[in-house]
Amino acid sequence: MVADAIGIAMLGAGNVGGGVVAALRNSRERYARLVGRELEVRAVLVRDASRERPGLDSSVLTTDIERLMIDKVQIVVEVMGGEEPAHEYMRHALEAGKHVVTANKEVMAKHGAELLGVAAAHGVRLFYEASVGGGIPVISPLSRDLLANEITAVTAIINGTTNFMLTAMANDGVDYDEVLAEAQRLGYAEPDPTADVEGIDAAYKLAILCGLAFGLEVGPEAIDREGISGLTANDFAYADELGYTIKLLATGRLENGDLIASVRPTLIAHSEPLAKVDGVLNAVQIEGDLVGRVLFEGPGAGAAPTASAVLADVLELARDYVFTDREPAPLAALSAARVLPAEAHRSRYYIRLTVPDRPGVLAQIAGALGERDVSIASMIQFETDESTGTAELVLTTHVAEVGALRAALDQVAEAGVVQWVGNVLPIAGASSGAGG
Amino acid sequence: MVADAIGIAMLGAGNVGGGVVAALRNSRERYARLVGRELEVRAVLVRDASRERPGLDSSVLTTDIERLMIDKVQIVVEVMGGEEPAHEYMRHALEAGKHVVTANKEVMAKHGAELLGVAAAHGVRLFYEASVGGGIPVISPLSRDLLANEITAVTAIINGTTNFMLTAMANDGVDYDEVLAEAQRLGYAEPDPTADVEGIDAAYKLAILCGLAFGLEVGPEAIDREGISGLTANDFAYADELGYTIKLLATGRLENGDLIASVRPTLIAHSEPLAKVDGVLNAVQIEGDLVGRVLFEGPGAGAAPTASAVLADVLELARDYVFTDREPAPLAALSAARVLPAEAHRSRYYIRLTVPDRPGVLAQIAGALGERDVSIASMIQFETDESTGTAELVLTTHVAEVGALRAALDQVAEAGVVQWVGNVLPIAGASSGAGG
Repeated sequence: MVADAIGIAMLGAGNVGGGVVAALRNSRERYARLVGRELEVRAVLVRDASRERPGLDSSVLTTDIERLMIDKVQIVVEVMGGEEPAHEYMRHALEAGKHVVTANKEVMAKHGAELLGVAAAHGVRLFYEASVGGGIPVISPLSRDLLANEITAVTAIINGTTNFMLTAMANDGVDYDEVLAEAQRLGYAEPDPTADVEGIDAAYKLAILCGLAFGLEVGPEAIDREGISGLTANDFAYADELGYTIKLLATGRLENGDLIASVRPTLIAHSEPLAKVDGVLNAVQIEGDLVGRVLFEGPGAGAAPTASAVLADVLELARDYVFTDREPAPLAALSAARVLPAEAHRSRYYIRLTVPDRPGVLAQIAGALGERDVSIASMIQFETDESTGTAELVLTTHVAEVGALRAALDQVAEAGVVQWVGNVLPIAGASSGAGG
Repeated sequence: MVADAIGIAMLGAGNVGGGVVAALRNSRERYARLVGRELEVRAVLVRDASRERPGLDSSVLTTDIERLMIDKVQIVVEVMGGEEPAHEYMRHALEAGKHVVTANKEVMAKHGAELLGVAAAHGVRLFYEASVGGGIPVISPLSRDLLANEITAVTAIINGTTNFMLTAMANDGVDYDEVLAEAQRLGYAEPDPTADVEGIDAAYKLAILCGLAFGLEVGPEAIDREGISGLTANDFAYADELGYTIKLLATGRLENGDLIASVRPTLIAHSEPLAKVDGVLNAVQIEGDLVGRVLFEGPGAGAAPTASAVLADVLELARDYVFTDREPAPLAALSAARVLPAEAHRSRYYIRLTVPDRPGVLAQIAGALGERDVSIASMIQFETDESTGTAELVLTTHVAEVGALRAALDQVAEAGVVQWVGNVLPIAGASSGAGG
């Protein structure tokens, strides 16, 4: 053991943990130069301490959490994932006076405010750059570089699995089931893809971003959320004809003090920077009163990129530990968000309907929408199916309240004017006075 | 005067200075909450102290630099621009024990290493986020968020004027003179556009980025540089046919310990994220061993975005000043770069030639190139001009040394095989094993 090294303990030694250990080994000398002392891994909590781990001496492996709470550990790195026991262990470490670095979006989304409070109460720090956007700096720009700004909106593509799938659907005209199978074959999607394709993963990350951007605590369950499984190749073809692509956008913004937070497949104009973020890449766009719009793009997952973010936090803590007697900066406590109910969200919308191919239908739909103050911006009739006597109709609206829009569609569906209500997707765009 | 406020002095009160003053006034309460004390502008160096400045009490205006060096000033903000006297004043402020925040790319490119040394010697800090990329966080990500990475390459679009012009040339098929006049009419280009269109401004910023990314000191005059004034509408048409657009790329990378640094119009594949950065936007792409590629995009100029970056630095200094007894982190002194001579740069290249429209010409050109190990990847003959009996020929090469390529072209030009050697532009792309 190096006498005056900084001691690191790790919760977990899986994929990301392995990346962290490998970088600590490969860049040992450079990190020691940056910090002024060596960084040494002194305890690693694992399920099976008898299994060999590349780069780790078996003497540091343990199944006992208390082995991490020793004096010679200053920083605890949580890379085990999942809600419990990660949350409980992080709390324990903070209470034991350890600085904590985590990559855990679920714990930070559900318990971030609580844990940051525990850290402040114990004079230690909790860093979580790796919890959103993998290797892309996001947390730090929001908490430091854009601090002079009143943040007005955050719009993000923060799930690589779904962005890979949507990019393939847009480029290759394939349907959802086919592209999911392909993503699973390539290892981009889990055997159970629910957390990704239903937007749960993205909602965790959006909750964290809203805390930083707006100082508001919002539970991930309070975020309006819809996944991508209802999208078809037709939606992409129609959107393209209208000048848009479809992305799973996580958006947060404030309107009259209400937080509008949603994760939804959203039409976005081809010319927008976020529309050009393809494949497994992630991107976070932040709007502030001074800076206007800035965008951060890069790999949102993977062992090495995530290790890059984890180790940025570790190096900052270690440098502070060595060079300053830094008091933790005062915690700007989060306020509970007043969340705007999903049915009151306003946006331009894309609506796909299957209608009987007969006169009068368009007028009845337009009438029902008009009665509820939903104004139609464009209407295009696509494929007619001679065998069933139906046609596909795509409408776009001006800015409207989605609750009113849904009520109008329910009415025409019940009256048999519309045979089937397909996707209703928000259209992103500042110019429309609305967002996704 | 607020008793325990943090005192700020400003060098200059022009466009950016006005943006800083306006934000300090508009966000006074929020900044005070973030810092724990008010921020107060206590002296502003101007040329004419009798002129009224919006938001500034006339009592703080001065033409005497010594009025800024008083005890009640902790942070000096330099927003006057230009090399001298800004450089001399910044040095004076650091020696007087003031922290300095600057937006000055020219001073940081030419004197950054010296001034950072002065700051370290006097126990104060010199922050310069606003000197590159306007409001886009660039300096801070390089110095903190990506610190765990060995940075392998920096590729950037860091001049909004030229990117606006190149975007218009690519989209509208117009020539250089026309688009320059348009940029001047819109206020994007100066009456004397030299610093922008010849890549001088971009070279300053690249020198700063190389210092941060590689720890190497490189004078802006040592950077291989070519402007955009030689580009024609034809180059964009030919590039597009080959699958590329043309951007003024600032690139820095290390190869065998040599720094390869250049600012050049460069062909870049349409699918690359940097190819999609349009108009006055800036973007910086950073490649690291852990993170892979990350890209930061946003407004590279303007009073409010630049104030956003200046004030991020001010807020960090003020928070440190209030909450810690922070010792400045040790300065990783820059080493002098061993700069690879421009003629030894290797890349794939695009070459546009005017040749006599007669048999045997292609064979002679290919022969001359082949003798010097320059291998042709594609060759397309474009417009034939019947009246002069000439044709335009566009070649792309495999990775080659530009010195050898130039020698071969000189030879065929002297021999009359080629009538005119047009643009020789690097082609960006990691896949080629080379960069722009």
